[in-house]
Amino acid sequence: LVVDKRKCLANLRNMMQKAREANIRFRPHCKTHACLEIGKWMKEEEDFGGVDCITVSSLSMAEYFASSSEWKDITVAFPVNILEIDTIRRLASQIQLNILVENVEAVDYLQDHLQEDSNLGVYLKIDTGYGRTGIPAQALDRIDPILERLKSSSSASSNTKMKFLGFLTHAGHAYHCRSKEEVKQIHDTQTKPLMAALKERYSGQFPDLQLSMGDTPTCSVVSAKDLQLFDEMRPGNFVFYDLEQAAIGACDWKDISVAVACPIVAKHPDRREIVIYGGGVHFSKDRLSGEPEGTIFGRVVQNVSGSSLEWGDVVDGMYARSLSQEHGVIVVPETQDFDQYPIGGLLFLLPVHSCMTADCLKHKGYLTTDGDWIERMKN
Amino acid sequence: LVVDKRKCLANLRNMMQKAREANIRFRPHCKTHACLEIGKWMKEEEDFGGVDCITVSSLSMAEYFASSSEWKDITVAFPVNILEIDTIRRLASQIQLNILVENVEAVDYLQDHLQEDSNLGVYLKIDTGYGRTGIPAQALDRIDPILERLKSSSSASSNTKMKFLGFLTHAGHAYHCRSKEEVKQIHDTQTKPLMAALKERYSGQFPDLQLSMGDTPTCSVVSAKDLQLFDEMRPGNFVFYDLEQAAIGACDWKDISVAVACPIVAKHPDRREIVIYGGGVHFSKDRLSGEPEGTIFGRVVQNVSGSSLEWGDVVDGMYARSLSQEHGVIVVPETQDFDQYPIGGLLFLLPVHSCMTADCLKHKGYLTTDGDWIERMKN
Repeated sequence: LVVDKRKCLANLRNMMQKAREANIRFRPHCKTHACLEIGKWMKEEEDFGGVDCITVSSLSMAEYFASSSEWKDITVAFPVNILEIDTIRRLASQIQLNILVENVEAVDYLQDHLQEDSNLGVYLKIDTGYGRTGIPAQALDRIDPILERLKSSSSASSNTKMKFLGFLTHAGHAYHCRSKEEVKQIHDTQTKPLMAALKERYSGQFPDLQLSMGDTPTCSVVSAKDLQLFDEMRPGNFVFYDLEQAAIGACDWKDISVAVACPIVAKHPDRREIVIYGGGVHFSKDRLSGEPEGTIFGRVVQNVSGSSLEWGDVVDGMYARSLSQEHGVIVVPETQDFDQYPIGGLLFLLPVHSCMTADCLKHKGYLTTDGDWIERMKN
Repeated sequence: LVVDKRKCLANLRNMMQKAREANIRFRPHCKTHACLEIGKWMKEEEDFGGVDCITVSSLSMAEYFASSSEWKDITVAFPVNILEIDTIRRLASQIQLNILVENVEAVDYLQDHLQEDSNLGVYLKIDTGYGRTGIPAQALDRIDPILERLKSSSSASSNTKMKFLGFLTHAGHAYHCRSKEEVKQIHDTQTKPLMAALKERYSGQFPDLQLSMGDTPTCSVVSAKDLQLFDEMRPGNFVFYDLEQAAIGACDWKDISVAVACPIVAKHPDRREIVIYGGGVHFSKDRLSGEPEGTIFGRVVQNVSGSSLEWGDVVDGMYARSLSQEHGVIVVPETQDFDQYPIGGLLFLLPVHSCMTADCLKHKGYLTTDGDWIERMKN
């Protein structure tokens, strides 16, 4: 798994620039890279405002980032798993830990099991149309009882166990869009008005109430002005981007900053296919449908002469048509000389979904295009 | 990831029994479990003939099993990746290492780079209809030049670098079958006659030529008598089985010996859905289409009262309808009391594809239903 640091930093700067223009907090989701070194790259971008708080997807990932002592303000953007109460207690005594709740059971459990004076911030997860997690934004009958409980646990008494921070949403259905306009429409007709209505309704009771929004498609496509309503944004995938984000319109192929280098192990000139050592255990089985070629699992990019690690443009019509556990089958278009791809050569492929690819067991980290090895979180 | 040792051993004994009836060598594929401890379970089944040779999917997995000094005869069932020549040289000096070739380039490269007196066995990979890797069984014009080269490198001269062992096939298209009859048909009309023809043609030149066949669907469904043509069988998935194998007809749901225990983090009674902490990073994104419910990503099994780790029958109509990176969305049928599934409870799910599930980064090993922890290979 090779990362092009220049492309990665360019993606980072663009997004930081937009957060600054919108004047909202930048709390990037770090599950995509899960890498302290790339976390440092973020911190070092001081010209663009730097980063001092992050989002992660699990408590173990929060522990990984907290362990470096560089990160002291971490949101775990996943409905709290109360079976991990010991980790929550430990982390909330060390850093500012923020979690998501969406039911009274979890709030009651936390109230019963947290230590006094925990640094635990709580967001209420709101569903603005995705339909996966979160309380539907208009289901006030489900929101009110949770806020009642959070209010009493956040009261000014000395034994504060957790503090209600505000409403958090993730427009995951933006991943189903296939144009910038569709992404904007979700933002304009769902995310923004639904979250604004919640703020208006509850800011009397909770004057410091914050609104947090999330996803890479929206943060990439929507203008800074249209993000100003929110207090923070939490995009994650944008550091790498991938073929799915390109299909959505959130990036161009040339912005994708990771590629998987795959050895060529077999060639079938009769059907113009190459078999690579690169399968589901290297890419994940995430697929991209609706491409001109149908469903694909990755796209081949050009080698760059004089460099063994950098890559060039996408080769038109050259893609992974299927992946099994370790094998990938690459279609070679008629425009390409079949003989230029020798047994033992390497093909570089852009992944469909970089978060899942980077998380594959087989990748312990990243080789940068400068030849440096950087480690990922060990699970 | 929980493994039911009793079910696992029953699956193992059934398959060993069939190999013994067919009087062919049993060389199980260990990529499914990738676990020395389960390797030991295999060895200990001496009443069923035991196991003294195995198949793996990568050279690093071969090194893992060779490191225990229990395994001295290992086939890497993947077209040889010549970029790993150093590992091949090292392993072939320590154990009997067998690899797969399917082009002259790889044979020439090995001939140039192997040490004298390497213990390297070579199978020619044959495609009997799957269409992924291997030379099509009838493409004699592609087979002959490779065998010519292998013949000279295996000659009786003292400097033998590699030895041609025979033909190896994997009927991977049996995974697309949805009935025992379809699996049998592939075996009867493709695998068996095509491999028999190769043996007949080449056994004059290579009297010790062996035939190796593979996959769990075929080995599960076809009778011992119909396997007698072959010298060895290499099923792998059967130790665990999974929902896909059940759909093929290779096993019943009750034979599946692994389940993923997933915490309940959110409940949506209005749409009768439960959200679990269990996503693509725990299951892989392998999906099963054509089920009564459409496409599914896992099926919920019943808890067993009095046991926190064992599971019972599949709950009809209760399945994972989608997986994202960490979330799974479970459909709860009307037959189930929604309130019996509390926040913080565990749901056990049978995986669609156990090989990929077991390989997920998040599982470092298995918890047995007896409560023992057994480690997997570290990547």
